[in-house]
Amino acid sequence: MTEESHTTAKDLDLQEEASLTSGSDSWHLQGLPDKGYEGYMITDGPYGLRKATGSDVYGSVPATCFPPTAGLASSWNPDLTYQVGQAMGEECIQEKVAVILGPGINIKRSPLGGRNFEFYSEDPVLAGHEAAGMVEGVQSKGVGTSLKHFAANNQETDRLRVSSDVDARTLREIYLPAFEYVVRKAKPWTIMCAYNKINGVFSSENRWLLTDVLRGEWGYQGMVMSDWGAVHNRVNALQAGLNLEMPPSRTDDQVVQAVQAGNLDKEQLDRMAQGILDLIDKARPAMSQQEYRYDVQEHNNVARRAAQESIVLLRNEDRILPLDPKKKVAVIGEFARTPRYQGGGSSHITPTEVSSALDGFKEAGMNVDFAPGFTLDDKEQDPALTQQALEAARGADTVVLFLGLPEYAESEGFDRTSMDLPDKQVALLKAVSEVNDRVVAVLSNGAVVTVANWMDKTKGLLETWLLGQEGGRAVVDVLTGAANPSGHLPETIPVRLEDNPTITSFPGEEGHSRYGEGVYVGYRYYDTFQRPVAFPFGFGLSYADFDLDQVAVTKTGANSARVEVTVTNTSQVDGAQTVQVYVAPCASRVNRPSHELKAFAKVFLKAGQSRRVSMDLTERDFAYWSTAMDTWHVEAGTYRIQVGTSSRDLVAEQDLQVDGDGRFIPLNAESTMAEWRENSIGGPILRDRVEQDGIPLPDDPNTAQLFDTMPLASVITLSGGDGNGIVADMVDRYRQALKQQGLDS
Amino acid sequence: MTEESHTTAKDLDLQEEASLTSGSDSWHLQGLPDKGYEGYMITDGPYGLRKATGSDVYGSVPATCFPPTAGLASSWNPDLTYQVGQAMGEECIQEKVAVILGPGINIKRSPLGGRNFEFYSEDPVLAGHEAAGMVEGVQSKGVGTSLKHFAANNQETDRLRVSSDVDARTLREIYLPAFEYVVRKAKPWTIMCAYNKINGVFSSENRWLLTDVLRGEWGYQGMVMSDWGAVHNRVNALQAGLNLEMPPSRTDDQVVQAVQAGNLDKEQLDRMAQGILDLIDKARPAMSQQEYRYDVQEHNNVARRAAQESIVLLRNEDRILPLDPKKKVAVIGEFARTPRYQGGGSSHITPTEVSSALDGFKEAGMNVDFAPGFTLDDKEQDPALTQQALEAARGADTVVLFLGLPEYAESEGFDRTSMDLPDKQVALLKAVSEVNDRVVAVLSNGAVVTVANWMDKTKGLLETWLLGQEGGRAVVDVLTGAANPSGHLPETIPVRLEDNPTITSFPGEEGHSRYGEGVYVGYRYYDTFQRPVAFPFGFGLSYADFDLDQVAVTKTGANSARVEVTVTNTSQVDGAQTVQVYVAPCASRVNRPSHELKAFAKVFLKAGQSRRVSMDLTERDFAYWSTAMDTWHVEAGTYRIQVGTSSRDLVAEQDLQVDGDGRFIPLNAESTMAEWRENSIGGPILRDRVEQDGIPLPDDPNTAQLFDTMPLASVITLSGGDGNGIVADMVDRYRQALKQQGLDS
Repeated sequence: MTEESHTTAKDLDLQEEASLTSGSDSWHLQGLPDKGYEGYMITDGPYGLRKATGSDVYGSVPATCFPPTAGLASSWNPDLTYQVGQAMGEECIQEKVAVILGPGINIKRSPLGGRNFEFYSEDPVLAGHEAAGMVEGVQSKGVGTSLKHFAANNQETDRLRVSSDVDARTLREIYLPAFEYVVRKAKPWTIMCAYNKINGVFSSENRWLLTDVLRGEWGYQGMVMSDWGAVHNRVNALQAGLNLEMPPSRTDDQVVQAVQAGNLDKEQLDRMAQGILDLIDKARPAMSQQEYRYDVQEHNNVARRAAQESIVLLRNEDRILPLDPKKKVAVIGEFARTPRYQGGGSSHITPTEVSSALDGFKEAGMNVDFAPGFTLDDKEQDPALTQQALEAARGADTVVLFLGLPEYAESEGFDRTSMDLPDKQVALLKAVSEVNDRVVAVLSNGAVVTVANWMDKTKGLLETWLLGQEGGRAVVDVLTGAANPSGHLPETIPVRLEDNPTITSFPGEEGHSRYGEGVYVGYRYYDTFQRPVAFPFGFGLSYADFDLDQVAVTKTGANSARVEVTVTNTSQVDGAQTVQVYVAPCASRVNRPSHELKAFAKVFLKAGQSRRVSMDLTERDFAYWSTAMDTWHVEAGTYRIQVGTSSRDLVAEQDLQVDGDGRFIPLNAESTMAEWRENSIGGPILRDRVEQDGIPLPDDPNTAQLFDTMPLASVITLSGGDGNGIVADMVDRYRQALKQQGLDS
Repeated sequence: MTEESHTTAKDLDLQEEASLTSGSDSWHLQGLPDKGYEGYMITDGPYGLRKATGSDVYGSVPATCFPPTAGLASSWNPDLTYQVGQAMGEECIQEKVAVILGPGINIKRSPLGGRNFEFYSEDPVLAGHEAAGMVEGVQSKGVGTSLKHFAANNQETDRLRVSSDVDARTLREIYLPAFEYVVRKAKPWTIMCAYNKINGVFSSENRWLLTDVLRGEWGYQGMVMSDWGAVHNRVNALQAGLNLEMPPSRTDDQVVQAVQAGNLDKEQLDRMAQGILDLIDKARPAMSQQEYRYDVQEHNNVARRAAQESIVLLRNEDRILPLDPKKKVAVIGEFARTPRYQGGGSSHITPTEVSSALDGFKEAGMNVDFAPGFTLDDKEQDPALTQQALEAARGADTVVLFLGLPEYAESEGFDRTSMDLPDKQVALLKAVSEVNDRVVAVLSNGAVVTVANWMDKTKGLLETWLLGQEGGRAVVDVLTGAANPSGHLPETIPVRLEDNPTITSFPGEEGHSRYGEGVYVGYRYYDTFQRPVAFPFGFGLSYADFDLDQVAVTKTGANSARVEVTVTNTSQVDGAQTVQVYVAPCASRVNRPSHELKAFAKVFLKAGQSRRVSMDLTERDFAYWSTAMDTWHVEAGTYRIQVGTSSRDLVAEQDLQVDGDGRFIPLNAESTMAEWRENSIGGPILRDRVEQDGIPLPDDPNTAQLFDTMPLASVITLSGGDGNGIVADMVDRYRQALKQQGLDS
């Protein structure tokens, strides 16, 4: 911040202040040019810059198309997302863009979610860690990010008005933690609120969300902007904590009048407007760089490395991969020639170049037979294409078959209704496998697809998601072994769509989407209830082999621990293994998933190399969100620490005694006898009254157990006392005791 | 009502009025003895009279123990429940009981529900029809019933305070319809409110439930009492519509003071107290009968017939049943000697007599080898019992193995945590099947048990639930063919507990139970999402064979139809088939189960006999509950009418064009373009404004489809108009037009 531009919002006149809180057009801040506050540009991301050219929504300046988020998430590598972030930051500087709108970190609640391709994971720890790398990478260049879409924006159906009806615990444990982690760790300059309502209140007008939680609990210092068109009432939005309405609705007068009429706090408007000034201050150094040019080729290299790490090797029977360069390969599938490398909607960008797999094979010096096999539209299969494909397959040692979801099948704006590949592609695979049993399938798809009904026809299977502009070369790098695949699944691949627990409620109806499955999203459901899956969360193979051993779990505090493990590459090739730490809860008073990912480390090891890896578990990693306590709660007990390479490939487990945080459920008129007895303040009060009033404490253990679960008032009434009256007195004493101890909040 | 006892509540003094609205003790109304209103007795049911003897909660006078509800529900025979009801009514007259507390018609949401043994079904149509028979049967004798527990009382865990958090559509389609049906059809004299809260409000204080819905919408004329101890605030309860607090809390003064202070409407107290007087008036004729004695033996016969019809034949490989009287039979299992014939808790009664299966075999003249096999406690298996059982099995042609849930495994007061039989029983079955491959398993269990992991070891399988005091003889009747089994499952038997959709949320925690699966309860889930089950809803075999043919579906109105089918007994034995009609919805704007039971008929046919059966479908049978419209809604379209003998044994399907009810979703500021266009009043307003304001109506079908799903205000704003302003005007015009048409409610 330069001295001459130091302006404080509260000193501006009302009209100026109001004007700051919406854009000057669809892609620019308003600013105060005469006071040195330029109205910088902010544009879409999240996996490359989409700077609109002129007024055309769909035209944009060339930019590097990095792997879309679904791909990048498979890297399990925040250092990599950091590097991608740095590159995107540099492109922003060149293009004079102060904030790039991303990353999108909403949880993949359902496989059908239309924007799953631009989100990370079904797990908030993985999403949070990778997004933090991205935010830190971009912001290391002096350019801002916009963490989106805050919050519980997990579907496209009716997205402009649907209410995500979700209970407090589920919000806290599944849908908010990735936001919280990135806010605390990476301090994004901006956050974008979502279109949807949460429990009936628009995110843009949700003071609990934007102020109490985000700024109050998490200490967020940046500003909040709306998703494009998410503001329904500008005054309510400002009062709730929304700094910036985008695009502008030209309703500054309403804001001014609301302050004058006393319907909007002046101090609140000051805070909201100040957020815009602070943002401009932060962006000014980078935006002031002249003639900055990023290295297009180097960014292309980053995109290629990122794409390599985004590829997940799911199946490699008979070690069919890497391809033997001496053998004849048939490449089948239009996707090999016409790559599907990015998604549709606001993230769709103009790449600086694009490589196809056929380009990659050519550059790798491999002479392959190509047959398109099918078209990328929804027309019926052309038998001639099938015949040509079978011809190619018959003549080859190995078939590499590129399958996937065509563009029409997924995009921002709508949810899918099926998890299946187009029928004609599956039919082709089956036909090809009849004439050649050495088939490697390569999948291109933004959201997860069904594989269980055809994968037995393959010996090799690569899930490449969408890989960005260098996807073609990266896939060939992996197929040939020039790069060793190291991706792991950021989401479970279920056997059938119907196995997913959201099947009963997604995407809702009549304006409501009920999050009925609660915290049991993704592997939390499949693993807890032993549902068979095609591939578990966290799964991924390598051309190398790894050992995990010497697992040690040591306590570092009452409710924290360190997990150490030695990872050894026992093979002849360099590679990476991703070590995952899951915590299985102790016997709990609430329903908890059988285990949850809490830490991970991607370990790169030369052939034969070994390394000791250390990961820390903090108090939060043992906690659940207690709705009754309205805070996180760690129960004392034995937790099981699991170390593995997927949620179902656990190589070691160790028990850990956790002391607990000593919190109690607050007592009230409905509290059970056990809740009274176990409470450090309520317990003595109960013992007093037991003597005084003869509250029954049965000897018979069955009755005692039954009484323990009943409201104390009912127990007393049942034994002939005035339950409601006695308990009301006891609650009074309890509250007084709390107050005396300064615990009354 | 005799003339001298005609009193009107509003003419009483306040203290008298207040006194009427709670009991005089745990089992009696207060009454006004000096005005001729006796304080009659009301006692527990629901499958036999539990009239307490003295003050001991657990002692009761002898009464016929009819099959508990889970058994009786398998009869699919409201005429039978009517006969059982008549018999219970007669026992009430003899014992001077004015109201018997039942039937319990809560939906079996989870297989683990602790009171499932006293509830009917996972389906509200079946529960409603059978309960209506019961209510009509009892009340035909001039004795009252108490339909319970109203409402959404589907678990025992934390039952005194838990909130059933359930959305409006799910309440209306799953948890309320059985109550509604019985109220409208059978007019129960009383209803018992539940302990639990619904969405945070205690049932006892829930005015929406007790007054708006029950009396307002359904026209209920009877009175409402509390479950025992369910009242937390007497004044709130009276105001909500609760007539009677049980047992009394001796807080009449609070009621009087509340009226005097203006905190309780005098008219409301009048209504509530009048309900008690009306009840006494209704009961007086029956209660005035002197020296009435019911026929103990005849009631025992009713219990036996009811038990026969309650038995479900699930498996009969090689027609192993009925038993060949010439062959040697080994009977194994303590349950054959010590029957488990009723449940635990408030329904537990003192039977007039009890027959065991061993009694039955003896009376049938069959000389069987008996071995107890195992004990009914939770101790480890005694190897000597196993040896003895194997010995018996080796020497027999056929083994009848009695398995089940011991008393400790299920009762009112707690929910189960497993669906499995005790391990030692399953181990014994497997051991027995190794030495004798002709095993018939007979199950005694109140709630459903896992069978999929052992039933392949049997050739025959009878689910007998709990059968009441004549269960022993009834089972032998069926095993020998003296009675032909005709029961059908009132609930699905899933393969695994984890396949049930409530697994993620049952029984909740910290005071809340989230009904996350919505309307997908039981077969609505399993069938819609093609989950394999052990036995489907509605399934049951017979010793006879039946054909269903000549299915005809004819329209009887815009939204109603008649279904006819010819049922033929093609076998040499008499028997009964239960024909079931399911409606599969048209393509809908909401998520609907793949099909739902809407009608059924149990058809008794002599060998070779044939009968044409007719069932009617009404408008409600095609409707879903629209939360947006706040009422039932029938969409126009093609519905599929399915006729079968279980939810998965459908023998004929026919399409039916339903006209729809012409209702529209009310328009508001958030309504989509399609909602405006399709609305009969909003459509013309939209067309006006399209011309006036140039609202975009794109030619491109993809864009048109996208726009259709967007709020109209957003569409207008996107095209540069003042969306919020224009739509606000349109909504005004719409509301004025509604008002002019008298539709504004």
